[in-house]
Amino acid sequence: MSVKVVTFGELMLRLTPPNYERLSQGRTFNIYYGGAEANVAATLAQLGINACLTTKLPNNDIGKGAVNYCSSFGINTNYIVYGGERLGIYFCEDGISQRSSSIIYDRKNSSFATAKGDDFNWDNILDDALLFHYTGITAGLSDNVRSLLLIALKKAKEKNVLVSCDLNYRARLWSKEEANKVMTEYMKYTDILIANEEDAEKVFGISSGSDVESGNIDIEGYKKVAEELFNRHHLKLVASHLRESRTATDNGWQVILYDGKTFALSKKYNIHVLDRVGAGDAFVAGLIYSYLDNKSLQEIAEFAAASGCLKHSVHGDFNIVSTAEIENLAKGSGAGRVKR
Amino acid sequence: MSVKVVTFGELMLRLTPPNYERLSQGRTFNIYYGGAEANVAATLAQLGINACLTTKLPNNDIGKGAVNYCSSFGINTNYIVYGGERLGIYFCEDGISQRSSSIIYDRKNSSFATAKGDDFNWDNILDDALLFHYTGITAGLSDNVRSLLLIALKKAKEKNVLVSCDLNYRARLWSKEEANKVMTEYMKYTDILIANEEDAEKVFGISSGSDVESGNIDIEGYKKVAEELFNRHHLKLVASHLRESRTATDNGWQVILYDGKTFALSKKYNIHVLDRVGAGDAFVAGLIYSYLDNKSLQEIAEFAAASGCLKHSVHGDFNIVSTAEIENLAKGSGAGRVKR
Amino acid sequence: MSVKVVTFGELMLRLTPPNYERLSQGRTFNIYYGGAEANVAATLAQLGINACLTTKLPNNDIGKGAVNYCSSFGINTNYIVYGGERLGIYFCEDGISQRSSSIIYDRKNSSFATAKGDDFNWDNILDDALLFHYTGITAGLSDNVRSLLLIALKKAKEKNVLVSCDLNYRARLWSKEEANKVMTEYMKYTDILIANEEDAEKVFGISSGSDVESGNIDIEGYKKVAEELFNRHHLKLVASHLRESRTATDNGWQVILYDGKTFALSKKYNIHVLDRVGAGDAFVAGLIYSYLDNKSLQEIAEFAAASGCLKHSVHGDFNIVSTAEIENLAKGSGAGRVKR
Amino acid sequence: MSVKVVTFGELMLRLTPPNYERLSQGRTFNIYYGGAEANVAATLAQLGINACLTTKLPNNDIGKGAVNYCSSFGINTNYIVYGGERLGIYFCEDGISQRSSSIIYDRKNSSFATAKGDDFNWDNILDDALLFHYTGITAGLSDNVRSLLLIALKKAKEKNVLVSCDLNYRARLWSKEEANKVMTEYMKYTDILIANEEDAEKVFGISSGSDVESGNIDIEGYKKVAEELFNRHHLKLVASHLRESRTATDNGWQVILYDGKTFALSKKYNIHVLDRVGAGDAFVAGLIYSYLDNKSLQEIAEFAAASGCLKHSVHGDFNIVSTAEIENLAKGSGAGRVKR
Amino acid sequence: MSVKVVTFGELMLRLTPPNYERLSQGRTFNIYYGGAEANVAATLAQLGINACLTTKLPNNDIGKGAVNYCSSFGINTNYIVYGGERLGIYFCEDGISQRSSSIIYDRKNSSFATAKGDDFNWDNILDDALLFHYTGITAGLSDNVRSLLLIALKKAKEKNVLVSCDLNYRARLWSKEEANKVMTEYMKYTDILIANEEDAEKVFGISSGSDVESGNIDIEGYKKVAEELFNRHHLKLVASHLRESRTATDNGWQVILYDGKTFALSKKYNIHVLDRVGAGDAFVAGLIYSYLDNKSLQEIAEFAAASGCLKHSVHGDFNIVSTAEIENLAKGSGAGRVKR
Amino acid sequence: MSVKVVTFGELMLRLTPPNYERLSQGRTFNIYYGGAEANVAATLAQLGINACLTTKLPNNDIGKGAVNYCSSFGINTNYIVYGGERLGIYFCEDGISQRSSSIIYDRKNSSFATAKGDDFNWDNILDDALLFHYTGITAGLSDNVRSLLLIALKKAKEKNVLVSCDLNYRARLWSKEEANKVMTEYMKYTDILIANEEDAEKVFGISSGSDVESGNIDIEGYKKVAEELFNRHHLKLVASHLRESRTATDNGWQVILYDGKTFALSKKYNIHVLDRVGAGDAFVAGLIYSYLDNKSLQEIAEFAAASGCLKHSVHGDFNIVSTAEIENLAKGSGAGRVKR
Repeated sequence: MSVKVVTFGELMLRLTPPNYERLSQGRTFNIYYGGAEANVAATLAQLGINACLTTKLPNNDIGKGAVNYCSSFGINTNYIVYGGERLGIYFCEDGISQRSSSIIYDRKNSSFATAKGDDFNWDNILDDALLFHYTGITAGLSDNVRSLLLIALKKAKEKNVLVSCDLNYRARLWSKEEANKVMTEYMKYTDILIANEEDAEKVFGISSGSDVESGNIDIEGYKKVAEELFNRHHLKLVASHLRESRTATDNGWQVILYDGKTFALSKKYNIHVLDRVGAGDAFVAGLIYSYLDNKSLQEIAEFAAASGCLKHSVHGDFNIVSTAEIENLAKGSGAGRVKR
Repeated sequence: MSVKVVTFGELMLRLTPPNYERLSQGRTFNIYYGGAEANVAATLAQLGINACLTTKLPNNDIGKGAVNYCSSFGINTNYIVYGGERLGIYFCEDGISQRSSSIIYDRKNSSFATAKGDDFNWDNILDDALLFHYTGITAGLSDNVRSLLLIALKKAKEKNVLVSCDLNYRARLWSKEEANKVMTEYMKYTDILIANEEDAEKVFGISSGSDVESGNIDIEGYKKVAEELFNRHHLKLVASHLRESRTATDNGWQVILYDGKTFALSKKYNIHVLDRVGAGDAFVAGLIYSYLDNKSLQEIAEFAAASGCLKHSVHGDFNIVSTAEIENLAKGSGAGRVKR
Repeated sequence: MSVKVVTFGELMLRLTPPNYERLSQGRTFNIYYGGAEANVAATLAQLGINACLTTKLPNNDIGKGAVNYCSSFGINTNYIVYGGERLGIYFCEDGISQRSSSIIYDRKNSSFATAKGDDFNWDNILDDALLFHYTGITAGLSDNVRSLLLIALKKAKEKNVLVSCDLNYRARLWSKEEANKVMTEYMKYTDILIANEEDAEKVFGISSGSDVESGNIDIEGYKKVAEELFNRHHLKLVASHLRESRTATDNGWQVILYDGKTFALSKKYNIHVLDRVGAGDAFVAGLIYSYLDNKSLQEIAEFAAASGCLKHSVHGDFNIVSTAEIENLAKGSGAGRVKR
Repeated sequence: MSVKVVTFGELMLRLTPPNYERLSQGRTFNIYYGGAEANVAATLAQLGINACLTTKLPNNDIGKGAVNYCSSFGINTNYIVYGGERLGIYFCEDGISQRSSSIIYDRKNSSFATAKGDDFNWDNILDDALLFHYTGITAGLSDNVRSLLLIALKKAKEKNVLVSCDLNYRARLWSKEEANKVMTEYMKYTDILIANEEDAEKVFGISSGSDVESGNIDIEGYKKVAEELFNRHHLKLVASHLRESRTATDNGWQVILYDGKTFALSKKYNIHVLDRVGAGDAFVAGLIYSYLDNKSLQEIAEFAAASGCLKHSVHGDFNIVSTAEIENLAKGSGAGRVKR
Repeated sequence: MSVKVVTFGELMLRLTPPNYERLSQGRTFNIYYGGAEANVAATLAQLGINACLTTKLPNNDIGKGAVNYCSSFGINTNYIVYGGERLGIYFCEDGISQRSSSIIYDRKNSSFATAKGDDFNWDNILDDALLFHYTGITAGLSDNVRSLLLIALKKAKEKNVLVSCDLNYRARLWSKEEANKVMTEYMKYTDILIANEEDAEKVFGISSGSDVESGNIDIEGYKKVAEELFNRHHLKLVASHLRESRTATDNGWQVILYDGKTFALSKKYNIHVLDRVGAGDAFVAGLIYSYLDNKSLQEIAEFAAASGCLKHSVHGDFNIVSTAEIENLAKGSGAGRVKR
Repeated sequence: MSVKVVTFGELMLRLTPPNYERLSQGRTFNIYYGGAEANVAATLAQLGINACLTTKLPNNDIGKGAVNYCSSFGINTNYIVYGGERLGIYFCEDGISQRSSSIIYDRKNSSFATAKGDDFNWDNILDDALLFHYTGITAGLSDNVRSLLLIALKKAKEKNVLVSCDLNYRARLWSKEEANKVMTEYMKYTDILIANEEDAEKVFGISSGSDVESGNIDIEGYKKVAEELFNRHHLKLVASHLRESRTATDNGWQVILYDGKTFALSKKYNIHVLDRVGAGDAFVAGLIYSYLDNKSLQEIAEFAAASGCLKHSVHGDFNIVSTAEIENLAKGSGAGRVKR
């Protein structure tokens, strides 16, 4: 647990009807908690990292439930602060076959979105950290959070903490113009950028010309995008997962990395999807873990791809996984056999 | 279904952990929908009344779930309007033995609380209605709703529609001073007032001097309060349930009415509580039903008490009950025997 | 397992909503199987008796489910025959507090009710049996079954098999006049009669004058009834449980026996009811077991009372219990302590 | 809700073990209600049609549960009548992989099957209706229902109400000869016929010579059948879904229509089946909706196919779906992506 | 039930989190009981064989639960003995997609593993039996059980009872050297050997040179192994299932038999896996059943393959299946269609 | 979190059938983890103490589940060590009414019971601790653990750490003679002793002559026992809860303390029991918390009694509770009212 990674973002209560029931007719919800940065922390914690989630939760039993949940995955919750009015909520209906998963957000006015400048002591939080991770979602949540994030980024740079960002553009939160302006500024402090083709186009206007909504993977197109992202923002690493959404149940999954010199493309998985929410975050966590572990570019790609692949087999936003499981899949031994 | 009753108030999503689990450790929620006025409508609909719930719901699957739920109880949902941002939520933990039930509200900025003046066509809604029912909760929700309610009350008076009110003071929503001012105004349009001793003291400053938090019933004290309420506000009927909360599981329950001449006191039930939320509303519905049915004061008291008593045996805010079941209990025949 | 007891009656599929939900709003049913004579067999099997259920089940997966269920309790299912159209069903809603349990029967045209004369080889079935048990329900089901039962009773007498009967009058099945005629005939072959005051009055017109629907126990009144039953039908034993139904949750429970000379009255239990269906049958099984075990009249009363008492703590029609558990309760040691 | 459609048929209680458990070992049932005509009404109601289910239910809590369930989907239940002895039941085991789904019917003597001539006021029921829908199942249920249906059909013709029929031959209900005679008569009043190749052969003796049990789709063969059906019965539209049952989990699905001039063939879906019961009815509802909406033949085929396709992803007989969801799938945009 | 088969082995409590949850985060376990020889008995019992499980269970409620479970499947439990300290347990996590199923054993010091010489009266147990079945797991459990098994095998030979063995090597239980010595001795008494290529190599050092962990089926390689097994041990039949584990969800499945003259290869199934544990045992049971039924070698292969295939669609170790279901699948009629 | 308390003992997997089902017929288990010392730590952690559980868990997913569970309650798990063969298990059936709760232990050869001398670095573990807590259960588990405990006790004394002990004699683990010898030695290092009358008699032969199995509370008798315990072992505090087990559901509950000068007797609660396992440990935690908080003897008694009382309303071994909840109950305000 010597390696410390800090993530900063909103943790939400996720309510999902069980067994592919639909939201409008359900009688029970399964309770999960999740959020892009918390999801990354959850996987990292299980891989042995001192993964610190920095967020703000309401000071009631719902906030207590959220922190209990994080603790049960081994996340370091010491930097979480309490206060504000509510925990953001999202309702998530698991799709199957031709019926897509769908999500209804109810996250406005959350404790996190209304957090203020003195809620977080960044000097303390980032002390001894090797890496700081954030996403474009946090940037889009509110002016408050946007300011907090900039403070954190500057402090990270000052303390020589690596910074990774998952671009993750959400049209419901802010306009492309706002996102462009803010994220361009943030890129100055960012070393590793995870961005798929669609987000790169919407936020930075970088496009290869392929149809990003088609559900097909265009590797050559993405390479051009990655090169442009890398060069424009002076990054150390650009990465993306590549997903083929044939149906809600049947997906292709692959990972591509670019370090300015070479591209690494992982093997491709055909996945029977149980729950795809958080798979991108599990991929990011796998990337961070193996990057900090000084693996080769190809090894990072395979580890990150396997980490994200396994998330599709786990309910909830948080992956439940061990280093050994990811490595076994990445190395291709024994998939499908019963482990006794 | 010829008799039409209109209720106006907020419908919320209620999330309750099953089997007396605590909020902070649960993995599933049972889904109910409820709100004081909707609860009254649900019982009335099952008793054969054309019970119309007037409210505003978000235009998404959560709003759809709410209206589906109301429809399944026979509530007339034709006057519900759609729009706004969210459905209010409340988390409700069922208490047992010495552990009290507890509720966390997350209802701010709901579609209903932010409803506007032209959302409801009161002339149409109140057409042919015999009675309009509201509670002090609605009055406390927001300035928007407070104005809408005053319009409705004036329209009801204009159309000779009877008006009933459950005083239901909620300190989290507004101050005693605000409540006093608004509710005093509303009383001008109100015929039937349901108010317990605690609320009468907090809203109208009417007190008998007994300790309202002691959990004991002080019938003589309440009589003085009822007389004062009746006279001050020129009412047709004053009513209250009287609850002895020995533990969260073991309650005494009784009903008292005053019509300006005589008091009617129902028999007293010793209740093994399954879910007490909504029992007061079931009592109000029983009162309205039997009042409109021109029963004697004592019959109204017994029917209303039995209606509220039975609610304690049903999960969720809405009672599930038939006229025959209430009458059988009110008349004291066969309680406890298996019905074959 | 040397002692063989044969019971003859209908086995039904019982569908009960979980957790005190009401029938009209449920989304799931718990599945049990039960019927008065099968319930008796289930307890006897667990006490080590070779308890043979004689019945007829449909030859499909529902019938298979029923026989699997019986087998899992150790009931001897070798005499069950297969055919006919359907398994009888009953919907059972568990009551709580002031809400009574309620049952809806859907048992017409069942495989058992339409069984025919050559379905059962009574000579074989009753071979080596010590006791044959039936109830008034079976007698009331159909003409077919009524004839089959008479054949069985005559064969039992012929083979010197003891015969016990639980009078169990069900007004939905037949009239008092029919029941009187048939049961009077059956009494000629019956040695042990279990009959409460209400059934004795309805079937045989024997009354002590007490109000059988009041929920109160009238021991002196019952003694008169028992004496009359004993003498009129030349029985060896008359028995009844005595139940005080204060609410659906809170019951008093006691047992009384009469052997023509003395009355034995068990201790009285105050029961917190989980599921009372089948408690009478568990009492009968306890009576049969200890009667065949040559216990004293008082010991039989205590064992039978404890057997029935424990059934109230078990879901489903069938008791789940051991001889040791019944004896421990009957002897009064350690109730309420955790058994480690 | 201005467009009114009337369907006439039996509503049954459907009991299904959860999570692919088998009927003979289950401990719980999930509760659904369904029946071919009710299923059509459920989808239509969700698409905004005033969809009226005409049926008869028992006057007890099981009947109440059924009508509550219909109401929660928005079905107009005003024409439902109450009485008779029981609700028909069917036990349905969900298949998976090489294990087929299987159904056990227990529907005899239901309130609907024993309905009588004056139970329904067809003049009132069909008033202002645009379309009346029935299936061959209703025709096969009982002589009572067969007569009622003929009255309804004549009244529909008289009032210029369009009539659609799903041929749906069930060998357990009646012989091919009976079906041929009755359905041939009914065809005089029918405008739109939904019939697959197997049913066309069994009821009307119309065959293309292909093996209807092979699980393969023979489009050319079906075209001949459709032409013959169209011409022989002077119809306005002939339709069928085409299913490839590779396993219980893996199905191909497509729709074909014929309007006397041209054939329209929808795109073909590869479906991961969650629950296929009611998919045919969802297809029929989609067809009726888009037909009444005056869409082109190809648009009708695509909408009807998408409606039926989506049903496979929903538990229970009733589809849960919106117009937008069907249109999105029919137009091919974004299937498989998470909707946020 | 005239045909008697005896199996001898350990029955364990199997605890599996529901709905593909992971072991480390679960809040509930589904309860099953299983063990290789009990699994074989369970299928045989359902096919009408008098299938006797010989084992030892603790004399407490856990042992009672185990025997109740066996009884509910029709297994003959008369030869089960009671005593010892505990029931062995195994925790089984169902895999999905790229996440493999995994099993944690906690079976040491079980009542069975510590059984002693006089616990079983083999003369009585094997009386009138046609076949005795054991597996290499039993042989590996403990010295106690190994000795008991040798006694049983000698008694079987003495009484001319056929003997079948599933080689089933488990590296956690014993070394290859131990297994080789013991199983070579046991082969003297064995007529039918079920052994896959991996176990044949590990226990008997017989290899075709193909990669047994690759997940691919090498039929030609297996033929060489089967010939060598047959000849070396003077067997009557050698058999194996052949599994392609593409993912935990997507498997190929086929069966091969060798009778010293010809090889029989069943058709190949593409299976969507619900629960693969026990599929091998269901295959063995199908083989034993059809072998004792004197079917042709090809018929045995098809029946055994279909029996094992169907197990993948059933939760728990025990298959739930009928002779008709297996035959229908083996003959290829109607797979995928709903059975009504 | 500045106050550090260390507890040392076994953590077990607890498996309990839901909803008062019996062990022998269950199909699911609820999963909890518990053990006397872990239970104390769980309550202390929720009250804000740095509560460190010292134990040994197997290095597999079951051990991981156990530590995840502890973490979710805020227990400090940093001193837990991993290794050994298995997690101890106990099966616990919740009793109701006249049916007692019952427990089956399967804890032999657990990782904890087989822990060795160098597994724990007591110097480090006890550093800065204010109190060390153990129970007689740990002492009885094995020779290994007994030795480890003595080392810990000596180290605690050396470091001036207060020591509390819950005597908790378990006849299944060791004889009275062994317990007497070992516990007498341990008392030299113990400051606070929690011991009820029954355990005091069995371990130390101290008796007041009252019948400890009667279920009645004998306060005067206990006072004599407490004085003798206090004086003989030179303690700082002697404590016990006093339980009246009227039935498994209906219990009286009270607490008594003795500090060598005065006795403090808490108020008495009439409890409707949901789950009584761990109530004694919750009482002990309340005692430790308020003792370390320097409360008066009477305040300690009330706080400890309320803490234990509330545990009866929570599923699982661990209490779920806040300081405010305990204080509110101890002070008697608002029990039974809904908290909004």
